[in-house]
Amino acid sequence: MSKVVTFGEIMLRLSTQRHLRFSQANNFTATYGGGEFNVAVSIANYGLEAEFVTRLPDNDLGHTALMEIKKRNVQAKNIAFGGDRLGVYFLETGAGTRGSKVVYDRANSAMATITPGTINWEEVFKDATVFHWSGVTPAVSQTAADVCLEAVKVASKMGVFITSDLNYRAKLWQYGKEPKDIMPELLSYSNVILGDLDTAFFMSGLAEEKPDYQNKASLPSLYNKLFTLYPNLEKVATTLRYSISASHQQIGGILYDNGELYSAAIKDVTPVVDRVGSGDAFMGGLIYGLLNKEYNAQQAVDFAVAACCLKHTIAGDINLVTADEVEKLMSGDASGKVAR
Amino acid sequence: MSKVVTFGEIMLRLSTQRHLRFSQANNFTATYGGGEFNVAVSIANYGLEAEFVTRLPDNDLGHTALMEIKKRNVQAKNIAFGGDRLGVYFLETGAGTRGSKVVYDRANSAMATITPGTINWEEVFKDATVFHWSGVTPAVSQTAADVCLEAVKVASKMGVFITSDLNYRAKLWQYGKEPKDIMPELLSYSNVILGDLDTAFFMSGLAEEKPDYQNKASLPSLYNKLFTLYPNLEKVATTLRYSISASHQQIGGILYDNGELYSAAIKDVTPVVDRVGSGDAFMGGLIYGLLNKEYNAQQAVDFAVAACCLKHTIAGDINLVTADEVEKLMSGDASGKVAR
Amino acid sequence: MSKVVTFGEIMLRLSTQRHLRFSQANNFTATYGGGEFNVAVSIANYGLEAEFVTRLPDNDLGHTALMEIKKRNVQAKNIAFGGDRLGVYFLETGAGTRGSKVVYDRANSAMATITPGTINWEEVFKDATVFHWSGVTPAVSQTAADVCLEAVKVASKMGVFITSDLNYRAKLWQYGKEPKDIMPELLSYSNVILGDLDTAFFMSGLAEEKPDYQNKASLPSLYNKLFTLYPNLEKVATTLRYSISASHQQIGGILYDNGELYSAAIKDVTPVVDRVGSGDAFMGGLIYGLLNKEYNAQQAVDFAVAACCLKHTIAGDINLVTADEVEKLMSGDASGKVAR
Amino acid sequence: MSKVVTFGEIMLRLSTQRHLRFSQANNFTATYGGGEFNVAVSIANYGLEAEFVTRLPDNDLGHTALMEIKKRNVQAKNIAFGGDRLGVYFLETGAGTRGSKVVYDRANSAMATITPGTINWEEVFKDATVFHWSGVTPAVSQTAADVCLEAVKVASKMGVFITSDLNYRAKLWQYGKEPKDIMPELLSYSNVILGDLDTAFFMSGLAEEKPDYQNKASLPSLYNKLFTLYPNLEKVATTLRYSISASHQQIGGILYDNGELYSAAIKDVTPVVDRVGSGDAFMGGLIYGLLNKEYNAQQAVDFAVAACCLKHTIAGDINLVTADEVEKLMSGDASGKVAR
Amino acid sequence: MSKVVTFGEIMLRLSTQRHLRFSQANNFTATYGGGEFNVAVSIANYGLEAEFVTRLPDNDLGHTALMEIKKRNVQAKNIAFGGDRLGVYFLETGAGTRGSKVVYDRANSAMATITPGTINWEEVFKDATVFHWSGVTPAVSQTAADVCLEAVKVASKMGVFITSDLNYRAKLWQYGKEPKDIMPELLSYSNVILGDLDTAFFMSGLAEEKPDYQNKASLPSLYNKLFTLYPNLEKVATTLRYSISASHQQIGGILYDNGELYSAAIKDVTPVVDRVGSGDAFMGGLIYGLLNKEYNAQQAVDFAVAACCLKHTIAGDINLVTADEVEKLMSGDASGKVAR
Amino acid sequence: MSKVVTFGEIMLRLSTQRHLRFSQANNFTATYGGGEFNVAVSIANYGLEAEFVTRLPDNDLGHTALMEIKKRNVQAKNIAFGGDRLGVYFLETGAGTRGSKVVYDRANSAMATITPGTINWEEVFKDATVFHWSGVTPAVSQTAADVCLEAVKVASKMGVFITSDLNYRAKLWQYGKEPKDIMPELLSYSNVILGDLDTAFFMSGLAEEKPDYQNKASLPSLYNKLFTLYPNLEKVATTLRYSISASHQQIGGILYDNGELYSAAIKDVTPVVDRVGSGDAFMGGLIYGLLNKEYNAQQAVDFAVAACCLKHTIAGDINLVTADEVEKLMSGDASGKVAR
Repeated sequence: MSKVVTFGEIMLRLSTQRHLRFSQANNFTATYGGGEFNVAVSIANYGLEAEFVTRLPDNDLGHTALMEIKKRNVQAKNIAFGGDRLGVYFLETGAGTRGSKVVYDRANSAMATITPGTINWEEVFKDATVFHWSGVTPAVSQTAADVCLEAVKVASKMGVFITSDLNYRAKLWQYGKEPKDIMPELLSYSNVILGDLDTAFFMSGLAEEKPDYQNKASLPSLYNKLFTLYPNLEKVATTLRYSISASHQQIGGILYDNGELYSAAIKDVTPVVDRVGSGDAFMGGLIYGLLNKEYNAQQAVDFAVAACCLKHTIAGDINLVTADEVEKLMSGDASGKVAR
Repeated sequence: MSKVVTFGEIMLRLSTQRHLRFSQANNFTATYGGGEFNVAVSIANYGLEAEFVTRLPDNDLGHTALMEIKKRNVQAKNIAFGGDRLGVYFLETGAGTRGSKVVYDRANSAMATITPGTINWEEVFKDATVFHWSGVTPAVSQTAADVCLEAVKVASKMGVFITSDLNYRAKLWQYGKEPKDIMPELLSYSNVILGDLDTAFFMSGLAEEKPDYQNKASLPSLYNKLFTLYPNLEKVATTLRYSISASHQQIGGILYDNGELYSAAIKDVTPVVDRVGSGDAFMGGLIYGLLNKEYNAQQAVDFAVAACCLKHTIAGDINLVTADEVEKLMSGDASGKVAR
Repeated sequence: MSKVVTFGEIMLRLSTQRHLRFSQANNFTATYGGGEFNVAVSIANYGLEAEFVTRLPDNDLGHTALMEIKKRNVQAKNIAFGGDRLGVYFLETGAGTRGSKVVYDRANSAMATITPGTINWEEVFKDATVFHWSGVTPAVSQTAADVCLEAVKVASKMGVFITSDLNYRAKLWQYGKEPKDIMPELLSYSNVILGDLDTAFFMSGLAEEKPDYQNKASLPSLYNKLFTLYPNLEKVATTLRYSISASHQQIGGILYDNGELYSAAIKDVTPVVDRVGSGDAFMGGLIYGLLNKEYNAQQAVDFAVAACCLKHTIAGDINLVTADEVEKLMSGDASGKVAR
Repeated sequence: MSKVVTFGEIMLRLSTQRHLRFSQANNFTATYGGGEFNVAVSIANYGLEAEFVTRLPDNDLGHTALMEIKKRNVQAKNIAFGGDRLGVYFLETGAGTRGSKVVYDRANSAMATITPGTINWEEVFKDATVFHWSGVTPAVSQTAADVCLEAVKVASKMGVFITSDLNYRAKLWQYGKEPKDIMPELLSYSNVILGDLDTAFFMSGLAEEKPDYQNKASLPSLYNKLFTLYPNLEKVATTLRYSISASHQQIGGILYDNGELYSAAIKDVTPVVDRVGSGDAFMGGLIYGLLNKEYNAQQAVDFAVAACCLKHTIAGDINLVTADEVEKLMSGDASGKVAR
Repeated sequence: MSKVVTFGEIMLRLSTQRHLRFSQANNFTATYGGGEFNVAVSIANYGLEAEFVTRLPDNDLGHTALMEIKKRNVQAKNIAFGGDRLGVYFLETGAGTRGSKVVYDRANSAMATITPGTINWEEVFKDATVFHWSGVTPAVSQTAADVCLEAVKVASKMGVFITSDLNYRAKLWQYGKEPKDIMPELLSYSNVILGDLDTAFFMSGLAEEKPDYQNKASLPSLYNKLFTLYPNLEKVATTLRYSISASHQQIGGILYDNGELYSAAIKDVTPVVDRVGSGDAFMGGLIYGLLNKEYNAQQAVDFAVAACCLKHTIAGDINLVTADEVEKLMSGDASGKVAR
Repeated sequence: MSKVVTFGEIMLRLSTQRHLRFSQANNFTATYGGGEFNVAVSIANYGLEAEFVTRLPDNDLGHTALMEIKKRNVQAKNIAFGGDRLGVYFLETGAGTRGSKVVYDRANSAMATITPGTINWEEVFKDATVFHWSGVTPAVSQTAADVCLEAVKVASKMGVFITSDLNYRAKLWQYGKEPKDIMPELLSYSNVILGDLDTAFFMSGLAEEKPDYQNKASLPSLYNKLFTLYPNLEKVATTLRYSISASHQQIGGILYDNGELYSAAIKDVTPVVDRVGSGDAFMGGLIYGLLNKEYNAQQAVDFAVAACCLKHTIAGDINLVTADEVEKLMSGDASGKVAR
């Protein structure tokens, strides 16, 4: 069975209930999530082996995060303990014309203060098929970026297939480096990149260029610029999202693979129970789709889009759906009938 | 005043909150419901007399179920006590492209283990106008089917008008009999049947035939096959449901009465607060519509459709609306204005 | 900085949760609101000074209401204490085809039993730019109407700009007077009136006339009738609301100002989290828009409509949005993207 | 089977959760209760027939109150509908050294505005064994006092046994009469009175006298003064309560019957889940005890004390315990073992 | 590191909130527990390896139970899937003089219908130090008893140390056998038995004898009777519990080991947050105490008693405390100071 | 009217519900508190003017904290905005033998990164009677200590009476300084110090000495050592706390004033709803007691103890009681009777 290892931060998420604004909240719903952990959970839910690597503080919140990881059937055997605090983010859930709001409180977290040498990457990758990381990790601190580089080098050397989600968050990247100082080296080891083309160009230090995703013929030349840049790159994927309102999204996706462009049809997503983590759900679906020998490239991106759509119906960061459920939607059944 | 007696199972319903999946639930909302009980509540809410007959376990859950029956102004004077447990069902509430899920845990319930002779049907029907039962009861056990037969025979003999909802649940019918072994005899006493035509054919042991509800001219010949089969049959009704998503349904209805086809216009239902029990709401509305001397057949089916639509806005199995509220929607006012 | 004073009743609002009907409610969510208080909160949220004048009972509920006023940065220095009870209203939250329901329980409240002389209006208005009142206050009792008159007379004399929301509630006006006996004198001091034209005619004792808001050319002659009647009138505004369902509204607005008709485009509002107080949100937005020197008349009504739309996404009576958030929607961005 | 009819007000009770003070409450738990209703529920729980007579407003709250009455197996067939509002009371739940607080909001309720002729008392009492009323009803308004007198006169004439709880609330009695103007005539029909001796003297217009309940020999002469006053009086009972803190009470009771003083041993009650309604629980227990042919006078008062103690463990006004549970505690088993 | 394997049933526990009675509950708090699982969690919390063996239904509830097992760091690698349902129990939480109530609904569960051959015991025990089972498992069905026997035979043969908790539940044992038909053979493999002496005698078919735990000198001769009966027995332990009320317990313990009686001092436990599972907490503490090489026998029983006391402060079945926390209480510090 | 200014940090407090441990929590109750803010609220509740000075981050959490300050009638006009985050602390609520647990997450908060010059202290103190600070502020960072010194210097120069609570938290003081490096200079401006004698000695760099509070005669010589050290000192007070369990505390207090020792009797506090902030409640009560001209020194300390006791009955950090409520308990009435 394939095994996917992901590396990143898991945070305590504190969200207001029933669309309340922060100043109305007397309670926060507590869950745990983070981009790369969310991907690991998707993988485990689809029946593959998944392991999550991170650094947690040795306090009650760190240990609770660990339990949530185990609960979701994700391996935790290479998690390091240390540092002062667990990263936190506060989420105000929007509706209609009012978007959700995130207040990050993740500076100085156990993961942000991780240093090279903390993780035994050879041990981590010894039975791994895929290693996944995202652009959030090198965004939080120089040392986290260093550990990320350490990881991709070992993974690459050991023949592990590397997937990366660009995951650009402008509010991060506060430690004095810009993405273009850091990301190109990291991405040079990637076999798959997920992200918008303009983000990829920006992070890669390429000239700005606004892609027109409706005009499919225009896209290959843009995707090809990335292939020129990154020697190990095999596939690039992009999630297409059209935001009608906070409660109504349209989701599609593109996979550019071996010179061919595979495009998944746009699906309507309404209502939106929780859109946080839906990009990670796409990523998790894509990795599964690419690993699934019974799928072709079109099916891989279709699976990713369907997984992303279903995530919007689930509260919390993680995508609690089975491969069967994704395949049902992928096959066109969006009827939401009662299963009994 | 007309009095409607219904017979069936009332279960403890345990539903997850705020669209949570089962594995996220730390709480279950507890309500009580079941197809035939739901019909009785509708009737009581419309101002007619209603009585519910069932068997409850003599424990705290059975007695709590009894209190919920009384709270809703449904008579409970012929309820039997005995058996080991109250039937339970767990409900995970879906949204959008993710459907709701039901986990039944109703085997060996007090109602499933009821035996002939438990209920004094002559006493039950002495002041009854209508007797309603559904295909769920004969599906749970042979003895429950036997009691159902016992009931319809007495009702028929005493001149009570009999209505039946086919209510096919494939996961039930586990005791070695198929619907076609049991249902035809039971249905032979029915004056009104509610159900899809293909279900009716399947349960009646007729050759499979896929009705095209859009093509109304094609329907009478299909409905007529049921009239040929069941000597007491006077009317057949069908709820039309088009599931756009778990949060968006379209509801219509057909009443085939005396050779005439009455069709209620399709109404959009969005959002869906809770669709469980909406079929029972249609049934309750239809019985009321047929009993209401001021309504013609078209109005009866219009009332049933409007009642069904409103049910989708109400949490729990039972349809907590008044006849005035149904008539307001039936008259075309779907504006949902604030009443103050 | 401009300062807006509003005068009216603040009530304890007890609403059912998750669309439950009254007979299902085991809990009521408690918030505090009332038309004129809601306007004051909008003003404070937009960064202007706001003061609310009312009469509260000297018991725990009155003091809690006072704390909620202060929490929202609304001045409370001229609030009187006295009377027997805080007004209460119960709210059942509808969905889709089922509208919300309000049960008022506000008779004999501290505000309904206020008498002239209770408030020192000269003190209240000494640093006020705008005084706002609505037709709810004169509707609750003769003495409340008397105090309202007392207020507008002083405000007018002191050169305070007066805005009025007609706010007609048929269930109020139980003390023996009709709106046309009371409102014309009160409105004669108004500089701005917000309301439907037919309501304005009805309350003013004018002949009934049904306006056609789609036919804009027909409107000036109707608005002009009000200008004939009320000597101080400078502007009249109307909120346009089309109720598709309890969960889907369409909101527009008109400002008739100096002989010119400014019309804001209709916006879709779906889903509706809470529509109570959305008229007050329009009023608050309009006052802010008119006070904002950087806005022209078109922008003022656009701001009011956008504020009204956003209110529908917020639970409770009061509109918890900033001017930046309203301007974002006003500028056409209804995408509800996550801010992080 | 004996049947007990009670007459009084049922209110919506809105209580803060988890010992929160009013100014911390964002939710109120909604239940329904009132002294005489609470007694009726006790009676029904002990297996006797119970009927509650009251007047309810014809709105959603009135109808919900009616459902709660029916849920608890209390007959409601002689309830009148009319008036403007349901009485409400707000409850802040104390703990330890901080007592609970009640804010009454019951003026002008449907029950307070009841008038003679509303209830057909001959119909009410036709199959009644006992009629119970309390001093709260004549305290709310002259007309309620008049209806109370109407009731006791008919009950007395029809040979119904009359029990009364003095239930003195100083904050009521606001309509211009004092208890001594009203209560003596009403009490002259009573067969049983429950109350403190000083309250009984005060309400009866007798000279003040402070009883010493520890000195049992001193009590008969005091109780006898009441027998002198009230010709139909057969028994007087007193609940003894020593309040160590809001969370720790000591409960005993006295029954003076036929010249004999029966005293139940003091029981410790800690913790206190909810003490509201515990006096009504005593009353309900006493009526049951007196009706139970297998009990002697000592057992009757022991049952009343045990019922009162158990009430303190139950949230809400009503005493949800069976006779078996009371008898278990009455027999000395306070161990609170798990029943499984 | 020592590894403890436990075998038994894990159930969905549905408990009412805030001391509500069943008929007041609109929500049930959902947790997962069962005697032998509870022991495994204790062991894992104390830092040893723990594995739980059971049979779960292959539905959402079974899989959620599995996640809870993993969350608590208990190995689940030998769990079988099959059967129809997860056992359920309903819990009403008492207070003071009102005890808690359990309604079992565990008949026909996946565990009750387990059959020999389902579990590969050689695989299970290959790295086990201790095997723990309790008298609940052979009480639910003949086949469960058969599997229990299968397990102890393999464990014994493989040299695994066997501990047993008698755990007598009179409401179980419904399949036609009495404890004395089944338990002696099972207990003959036990190295440690936990239970009351009278229960041990009853289950062993010995003559009834009421032990006087206050009279310590009288106990050895009684314990010795068990040693005569069971050849592998090394130690017997008894939890002493004195129930002052549902909210106040007194807990002590005895360990009879190698002819010596070790008695732990009685500790007061008040208030009781949740007493379900406190016997399992004693058992878990005892196993840990016996495995801990730094403890003598007195310390082992002291640890068990302290663990049992702490369990009463924790909601749910499982004892979420660390060995450090138990040792702190064991050392006499019951002050409950804030740790910050 | 006297005005009390306090300076310190206000944090978001996230506490588990119903005694849940951190790993069981799916929700955190959100309130706002902090030692010096808590004192300010007490003062405002007793009817004096109170102002709180702090630094808040300019994000949604900072603004919500500001609203909570205003809600409680505490002035906020000199609060600075800036910095990155609001301090947070997580609270697990214990019971009985299990103490509560606090996980601090307050490093790098807006308050910890405040720098001298941020607050205009001359403006702050222009109408102040008392300035209160505590040892938590200089414990968080050097710059916070610097601002504290800045404040006491200005306060002293302007003749403001200075009170200080030693508030030693060993987990703070992480920036390289020990209390004895910082506190003596700060305390040299204090007129009143609240704290344990051993803490005072430790923070003052005096030789360790264990006071025996039972032996009152031994105390004056110890208190006098502080008077020798601190020239402005007029009074020293100590809260006496004996922790029977997390649910049962005993509280007393000492005031050493002008060479006289005033000792308040020990009061039992059980149950404990929430003990966090009870020391601040003592401090707030003491300041009020000292400012109240109608109290003598004994009454001042009695008031402080009663206020501290009542705080234990109130959820959250702040003491929501009136002076009347404190005086009732101070006068010996701990009965917790229902006020209605």
